Amino acid sequence: MTEVLPNFIKNRALLTPDREAIVYKKERLTFKELYEKAYYRAGILTAFGIKDTDYVGFLVKSDLETVLHLFAMQIIGAKAVLLNNRLTAKEMAFQLTDANATFLITEEDFQENALLLKKELEISVFYKEGIEDSSYIEPIEKEQLALDEACTIMYTSGTTGLPKGVIQSYGNHWWSAMGNTLNAGLYEKETWLCAVPLFHISGFSILMRSIIYGMKIVLHDGFNEHKILHDLWEERVTIMSVVTTMLERIEQAANERFPTYFRYMLLGGGPATVELITRCINKGIRVYYSYGMTETSSQIVTLSPEDSIRKIGSAGKALFPAQLRIVNDLGEVLGQNEVGEIKVCGPNVSRGYLNKENHLKDGWFFTGDIGYIDSEGFLYVLDRRSDLIISGGENVYPAEVEAVLTEMEGIREAAVIGVPEEQWGQVPVAFVVADGRVCSEKSIMENCEKSLAKYKIPQRVFFVSEVPRNASGKIVRRDLRKWVEEQKNL
Amino acid sequence: MTEVLPNFIKNRALLTPDREAIVYKKERLTFKELYEKAYYRAGILTAFGIKDTDYVGFLVKSDLETVLHLFAMQIIGAKAVLLNNRLTAKEMAFQLTDANATFLITEEDFQENALLLKKELEISVFYKEGIEDSSYIEPIEKEQLALDEACTIMYTSGTTGLPKGVIQSYGNHWWSAMGNTLNAGLYEKETWLCAVPLFHISGFSILMRSIIYGMKIVLHDGFNEHKILHDLWEERVTIMSVVTTMLERIEQAANERFPTYFRYMLLGGGPATVELITRCINKGIRVYYSYGMTETSSQIVTLSPEDSIRKIGSAGKALFPAQLRIVNDLGEVLGQNEVGEIKVCGPNVSRGYLNKENHLKDGWFFTGDIGYIDSEGFLYVLDRRSDLIISGGENVYPAEVEAVLTEMEGIREAAVIGVPEEQWGQVPVAFVVADGRVCSEKSIMENCEKSLAKYKIPQRVFFVSEVPRNASGKIVRRDLRKWVEEQKNL
Repeated sequence: MTEVLPNFIKNRALLTPDREAIVYKKERLTFKELYEKAYYRAGILTAFGIKDTDYVGFLVKSDLETVLHLFAMQIIGAKAVLLNNRLTAKEMAFQLTDANATFLITEEDFQENALLLKKELEISVFYKEGIEDSSYIEPIEKEQLALDEACTIMYTSGTTGLPKGVIQSYGNHWWSAMGNTLNAGLYEKETWLCAVPLFHISGFSILMRSIIYGMKIVLHDGFNEHKILHDLWEERVTIMSVVTTMLERIEQAANERFPTYFRYMLLGGGPATVELITRCINKGIRVYYSYGMTETSSQIVTLSPEDSIRKIGSAGKALFPAQLRIVNDLGEVLGQNEVGEIKVCGPNVSRGYLNKENHLKDGWFFTGDIGYIDSEGFLYVLDRRSDLIISGGENVYPAEVEAVLTEMEGIREAAVIGVPEEQWGQVPVAFVVADGRVCSEKSIMENCEKSLAKYKIPQRVFFVSEVPRNASGKIVRRDLRKWVEEQKNL
Repeated sequence: MTEVLPNFIKNRALLTPDREAIVYKKERLTFKELYEKAYYRAGILTAFGIKDTDYVGFLVKSDLETVLHLFAMQIIGAKAVLLNNRLTAKEMAFQLTDANATFLITEEDFQENALLLKKELEISVFYKEGIEDSSYIEPIEKEQLALDEACTIMYTSGTTGLPKGVIQSYGNHWWSAMGNTLNAGLYEKETWLCAVPLFHISGFSILMRSIIYGMKIVLHDGFNEHKILHDLWEERVTIMSVVTTMLERIEQAANERFPTYFRYMLLGGGPATVELITRCINKGIRVYYSYGMTETSSQIVTLSPEDSIRKIGSAGKALFPAQLRIVNDLGEVLGQNEVGEIKVCGPNVSRGYLNKENHLKDGWFFTGDIGYIDSEGFLYVLDRRSDLIISGGENVYPAEVEAVLTEMEGIREAAVIGVPEEQWGQVPVAFVVADGRVCSEKSIMENCEKSLAKYKIPQRVFFVSEVPRNASGKIVRRDLRKWVEEQKNL
C-alpha cells in the first residue's frame, strides 16, 4: 500500500507558518505567504482550465513567480512537464507532444517559442505575467497526496537519442529529501541557495526539500559568483548545489574564508580535482560530491566531506534508503573492485518513463554507467552512460546529436564525443563522414541550431573517412577521444 | 506498493562503520561492531531454533546485551514481543499466549517468572547470559526489509481491560524517525541518552532512530539523575527522552546551566507545569512536549520549544507525515476549539493489533482521547482515553485494574481513578463496593500483587456503598476525582 501524506505545501504552511520560506531579490515570503500566493495561482490556473489530471508544460526561468506556479500545480495535483528553456522549439514540441500536454505555462521572454508551440500543437498558453488580469475559480485542493502519484516529468535522453519523460512521483521527491537528510543532517535555520535551474532535478529538488524540511531557499535567477558570495553572508546560507565549474568560480572569487554556519556544497555532474577540493578546504568550503540523475530524483550516491580527500574520485556510498550494485552483462552481481554496469534501486528511483513499458528489472534501474565498488563500499564511476557529455551541468547525449547530424544532407555517418574544456568542463565535438555532397563545418553548425539547444551543438566538426566501430557496430568513442588528445600534444 | 529498504542495522554498518553507535557503562561500540555482535547473536538464536516467522518474547532489562539481541532479531527478521518486566507472570503469560510466542529471551534476574512461564506455556527459554556456551549456525540474514513487515509487538490495554498486541512495522518505526527529524532536525554527532525502558516505545524508538540516523546512544539501565548529568557532559548528549517526574528530578539536581550542545528533552506521558518549564529554560534546558502512544510508534504530536511557554498545556502540532482531527460521536470533523475525540493517521500509526480485526476507519486511528485544536492548529489534550492513569511514565488502565478487583472474593463492584502524587505524577486508587463478605484494604492490595504489576496496584482502597454511574451504566470517574480532591481540602 502506498503511503498517503498531507499535501506537502499546505502542511508546511500549517506547521511553520511564520518561518521564512524563500528569498528572491527584494522579495521575502514566509511559508504561509508562499502557500497563500500559490493557492491564489491555483485558482487562476483552475479558471484557465487546468485540472488535476492535466500535464502542463513549463517553459520558464528561475524566479519567484515560477516557484509559485509550480507549487500551485501541487495544490491542485496537476503534473508539471519541465522544459529545459535552452531547447529549440522543435525539441520542446517533441516533449510536449510525448507528454500529451494540453497547457503551457510560460513568460513573455519565451514568447517566440511559445507562439510556435501554440501554433504547432494547439496547446493553451498561459503567461506568468498575466495573473493580474486573470479570472479566478476556487481551486479543488488536494488535501492529501498518495506518494505514488506523479508530481513532475523531466525529459532525458538515452542510447536511442529520443528523449524520454521521467515520471517523478511525490514519493520519489520525498524519499530523495529523506536520503539527503539522513546523510547530511538537518539544521535549525537551514538555508539552501539555489542557482541551478528549476527545470533540472538539481533545482527542483531544492523546492521539494524546502517544503518538506521547512527550509529557507535563496533563489537566484542565474549563476553569478559575486551575487552568490554576497548572499552567502547576507542570508546566512548553509547549503548550496553546484556543478564543478560553478564551484571553481565561487572558490576563485571568494576573498575570505567561508563562515562557519555554511555547511556544504552539494556537488553534482562530474567530480572535482584534488587540487580544487584542497583549495575549497583551505577556504572552509566543505564539499559533498554526489552521483545521481533525473531517474533517481537527484543524488543517490554521495561522498561525505570527511572522505573527500581520502576517497577522491569516488562518488561515495548510496543514500540510506537506496541500494547499489555492480553487474556484468549477464546481470550477475560483481564483487569488490570488479568493473561493470551500475544498477540502483530505492524509493527515490522513478518507476518509469511516460508512455513506456516498465524499464526496471525486479525494481532495479540499470543506469548504463560503468563503475566499481571498492572494499570499503565506495562507488567509483568510470564512464557515464551512453558516453554522456556533461557541459556546464547540462547533459548532452551523443546519440541525440548524432541523430540530428546524420539526418543532414551531405552526412553519411556521425560520431559525437565530449572533450575537456576549461569553462564548461566538457563540450561536444563531432566526427562526420561526408557522402560526397557539399557540406562544411560552418553549415553543419548552422543546421544544428534549428534542432538542438546551444549547449548540444558541436564546437568543432572533423571530417573523417570512417567512424571507428567495434564488431557489433557500436562506435568506439574512446578511439576518438584518444585522437583528440593526441592532437593537443602535437 | 510498500517500499523495500536495505536492512537498517546492516545498512548503517555499511554506511558509517566507524561511527560510535552505543555507550553502555564502560563499553563502547561502533556501528560495525554493533552489527557484528548482533550478527553473532543472530547465529546463536538461529541455532536455538528461532526463525524469521517466529514471535519471540523479551523479558529483559535495558542493557547492551538486550540491544544486541533486539538487533539480532532484525537481522533474521523475527518479531520481538516486548514484555514490560514489571508485569506479573500471569500478565506476561496472557501476552505471550496471545502473541503465540514460542520463544522467550530473558536473563537470570527474571528466572523465577521465566520458569513459571516455561512450565505454563511450554515455551523455549533462552538466557542472555548463555551466549558464551551456545552453539552457532550461520543466520539467514534479511538483506532487505519491506516496510509493512512486523518488527515489534507491544501490549497496551484499552477500555476492555484486556491488553492487545500493537503491531509496529519497520515502516511505522521508520516514519516515526522521519517525523521526529523533520520537526527537530538532525545534527552531526547527535547523541541520545536513553534512560527509559527499551520495552516501551519511548525507549525502543531510540534504538530505531540510532540505526536510521547513524546516531550515538548513551544507554542507562535505569533512571538516576546524577548519572544522567554526569554523562550529559561526559558524552556530549544532545537529546534525551523523559517523563515529567524525570525532568523534575534532573532539573533539581542540575547545579549548572546545560551545555549549549544539548538540544532538547523530548517529554512524553503528560504535560509539565509552566513553573517547571520556566525553571528548565532558566537552566538552558529546551523541552519538546509530545503526545503519542504505543499505537503511533511514539510521538505523533509535538510542541516545539519556541512555543513551549506561549502554548503551555498544548501538545503541539502533528509531525509532518501525520494528520490530526477532532471528531464528534458521529465521526464528523469538528472545527476550531470544539472539543471531541482525537483521531490520527499517518504512516507511523500501527495498522492493527495482533489477531484482531482492523481497527482503523479509513486509515484513521481513534485514540479515545479527548481534546481540541485551537485557531493556530495546536492540539490540547483534555482527557486521556479510558481515563488512562500515567504513573511515572507507565500506563495504568482503570478497566484492567477494575477487572482484577471485581474477580476477588468479597467485592461486588470496583472503580479505579488516578490521583495526583508528587513522585509519580499520578497513582491509582480504588473504590470498592463490598458484597458483605470479609475484605480489607490490606487483603485487596495483597491479592492484587498476584495479578498486577506493582505500579498498577491501587495505593488506597476506599469502601463505598455504590459506584457513581451515568444513565448508560458507565462509571462517572470525575465524581470520584472530585471527592478525593475534597478530602484533601478538609
